[in-house]
Amino acid sequence: MPISLSSVAESRAASPTSPAVAPQFSAIHSHKTFNAPPHQADKILPPKSSVHSSQTSEIVREHPLRILVAPSGFKESLGPERVANAIEAGVRNVLSSSSVILRKLPLHDGGEGFARAVVVAHGGVIVDQAVTGPVGSLVESHLGFISDDKGTAVLDVAAAAGLRLVPKDARDPTKTTIYGVGELIKKALDAGCSKIIIGCGDSGTSDGGAGMLQALGVRLLDIDGKELPNADGGRSLYRLANLFWCGVHPRLRKDAIQIEAVCNIKNFLCGPRGVARVYGPQKGATPEEVDLLAAALEQLAQVVSLTFGKEISRIPGIGASGGIGTGLLLLGAKLRDRSEAINEYFELDRVFEEDWDFVITAEGSLDFQSPHGKMTTEIARRAKNNGAQVVALAGSIGDGADDCYDAGIKAFTSILKGPLTLEEAIAQTETLVMDGAEKVMRMIMVGLTLGLSLK
Amino acid sequence: MPISLSSVAESRAASPTSPAVAPQFSAIHSHKTFNAPPHQADKILPPKSSVHSSQTSEIVREHPLRILVAPSGFKESLGPERVANAIEAGVRNVLSSSSVILRKLPLHDGGEGFARAVVVAHGGVIVDQAVTGPVGSLVESHLGFISDDKGTAVLDVAAAAGLRLVPKDARDPTKTTIYGVGELIKKALDAGCSKIIIGCGDSGTSDGGAGMLQALGVRLLDIDGKELPNADGGRSLYRLANLFWCGVHPRLRKDAIQIEAVCNIKNFLCGPRGVARVYGPQKGATPEEVDLLAAALEQLAQVVSLTFGKEISRIPGIGASGGIGTGLLLLGAKLRDRSEAINEYFELDRVFEEDWDFVITAEGSLDFQSPHGKMTTEIARRAKNNGAQVVALAGSIGDGADDCYDAGIKAFTSILKGPLTLEEAIAQTETLVMDGAEKVMRMIMVGLTLGLSLK
Repeated sequence: MPISLSSVAESRAASPTSPAVAPQFSAIHSHKTFNAPPHQADKILPPKSSVHSSQTSEIVREHPLRILVAPSGFKESLGPERVANAIEAGVRNVLSSSSVILRKLPLHDGGEGFARAVVVAHGGVIVDQAVTGPVGSLVESHLGFISDDKGTAVLDVAAAAGLRLVPKDARDPTKTTIYGVGELIKKALDAGCSKIIIGCGDSGTSDGGAGMLQALGVRLLDIDGKELPNADGGRSLYRLANLFWCGVHPRLRKDAIQIEAVCNIKNFLCGPRGVARVYGPQKGATPEEVDLLAAALEQLAQVVSLTFGKEISRIPGIGASGGIGTGLLLLGAKLRDRSEAINEYFELDRVFEEDWDFVITAEGSLDFQSPHGKMTTEIARRAKNNGAQVVALAGSIGDGADDCYDAGIKAFTSILKGPLTLEEAIAQTETLVMDGAEKVMRMIMVGLTLGLSLK
Repeated sequence: MPISLSSVAESRAASPTSPAVAPQFSAIHSHKTFNAPPHQADKILPPKSSVHSSQTSEIVREHPLRILVAPSGFKESLGPERVANAIEAGVRNVLSSSSVILRKLPLHDGGEGFARAVVVAHGGVIVDQAVTGPVGSLVESHLGFISDDKGTAVLDVAAAAGLRLVPKDARDPTKTTIYGVGELIKKALDAGCSKIIIGCGDSGTSDGGAGMLQALGVRLLDIDGKELPNADGGRSLYRLANLFWCGVHPRLRKDAIQIEAVCNIKNFLCGPRGVARVYGPQKGATPEEVDLLAAALEQLAQVVSLTFGKEISRIPGIGASGGIGTGLLLLGAKLRDRSEAINEYFELDRVFEEDWDFVITAEGSLDFQSPHGKMTTEIARRAKNNGAQVVALAGSIGDGADDCYDAGIKAFTSILKGPLTLEEAIAQTETLVMDGAEKVMRMIMVGLTLGLSLK
């Protein structure tokens, strides 16, 4: 398929109404865009050879480059929509609007920003709702209502109990609660929804969903029938002996609701690869607190297994988001593999029915874990089938990142520009992503010019 | 000009005697090279379109890519030869030996490694020589003797008084001495050389060349005719009143020697842009020490102007390498602009008489200073005339690096892979350069494949 490009300077002259930088970046980088020096006109000329500059210009004007920008978010730093916007801005610093057909497909995995993204993809409204936050004080949260005939609500754990909502000095997952998620579910039930989609990911809690159950009217009792404190985190679950369902929300009792949870189904509740041991330290637990949590969640698993009538510990997904999968299981939810669910909600397969020349993806860290269920390599697999090349930007590139080549990523690079701390990198992510995308685009143009000189 | 490439896997199979990784890296990265998974065979296939894989393979087998690897060294970390080797290794991780004609042209600017590089370029021998190091203790140094009919010696300040030779806790440029450079010159004089080439750069001293003069028999006297201490650094020069030439090396007295110094001719000895204020802090001076040095070097300039019979402060190059330019001027040396001199010694222009598809250059830091006399942008200017595209690798990318586009660099990137300190980056430079070159090469291949699908 022929590809068309023209130089920045030329295309700017040709389309003065299409600024080459997204508005949000124009203030920072206006010198690049609006004072482009005349030399930039030769940016994409071929090096020498039979392909003369005029020939190249002719060829590249014919059809624009088809680029799909499909990045994940950078955890605790920048959501996928803003990453996609930053990449677009970087690309447009190099290619004019007439030289590129660019589509953005921000990638969600059920974590931060999931509810908003589903509403954007399917139409609907986001409704603000104050809830009990992970450390007990009220936080501004939200849920979405999708414009369909089923009355579907969508919410995400991150918006009510995300790690981002836990102040750095209060990161103790034995205490943080997922109570607010229960309040969001209650809101959806009260609104008469018949389906609730819950994105699980990026939580700052490890209470096995206990807080959520309490918010929905389930009472947690100890061996003496005494109620455990409300929204107390995972720490008191080691005393859990029984669940008392009489007060539960009436619409849950009537089985009138379909709940779908989007989970990393590889997360376990108990054992050496369980919630406490794997995620406890990331959420701020000391080794002693990890032990306490592990014991408490073991106890929860026993009680739930009894309630449920079968051993639950091998059920995929019950360890999702600090164990909320366990609580959701009790509510009759379907725990769905997130890659399958995301594909459905965001119609990834359909995007790849179109032809793309290449895909720019991104994630915070590219390493040996990336090919195992991360969205970027999910995209790479689809792109490979589509015949599009994939390049990736990453905040950091860790051990085993070369495995990404196996998953279909042709080339990747870090967005960093010099020695700096993680905190500094996080603070500058948006600019670094934009600059990184520009650098990648320029490097690809060097190769493209070489390729044009072939034959 | 047609370019030929074949996939990594294919070419490895075709040329088993040409390992795709330079030997020094094979231990670290052997998995990439010798256990290449079968999927790598499709690395350079075009994404779709009229260019089928077999066609591509045919085209790319015809002629190899012509790549010139012309990097500067990374200061205090990796010399240009090793940077060039690392870049070559990275490139060969992607392209087989039959797909590339690669030439290495390590770039020197008169600093670290200059003497060895001139000997490599022109033939000759390196002779080891212990000298008085910058902090007074003996250090192993060296000088070169070139196989020509003039009897030319070549040495560099960095090998006898380089910043690298000053322990971190002894970095006080009021005390460090360039005495050892005088000892190397004496060695060349004693050997009967009729020409001495001196590379100035990367010094850890700021004594205005005083130590060198002392080593060659010049006595520095105060107002009472009392001799200043030997090899005392810049600190006692504020007492300098006269120079006593009676004891100077006899061959210098007879004007029997031609001395050529390779300088950054933009370095001044005195004033706000002089040795003390600009380089003092980099070499470890406190603000008080900077003031002391500035006063001492002003006094040196006055005494030398009297000796010389004219005001010297505007002579280009006298501030080179902690002011050694001043001392060399007294010895009758010609202070040469390094870009002109380097071009002559290393025949840069001649390298660019050949055709190159692209040039990979590199330097420690790419920023607003890069287009002003740094070797990388010198190379970029030549490449532009040659019609070759230039890409650059950098340890860090600073403010104003975009100016490099004006100088002819088409694309650049940092070699960093994640947040880290400067010290960590320096410790890993060699691997980072190799990996960075591989990433750049893969990114260019994405573009090349796209370019092939044009028309």
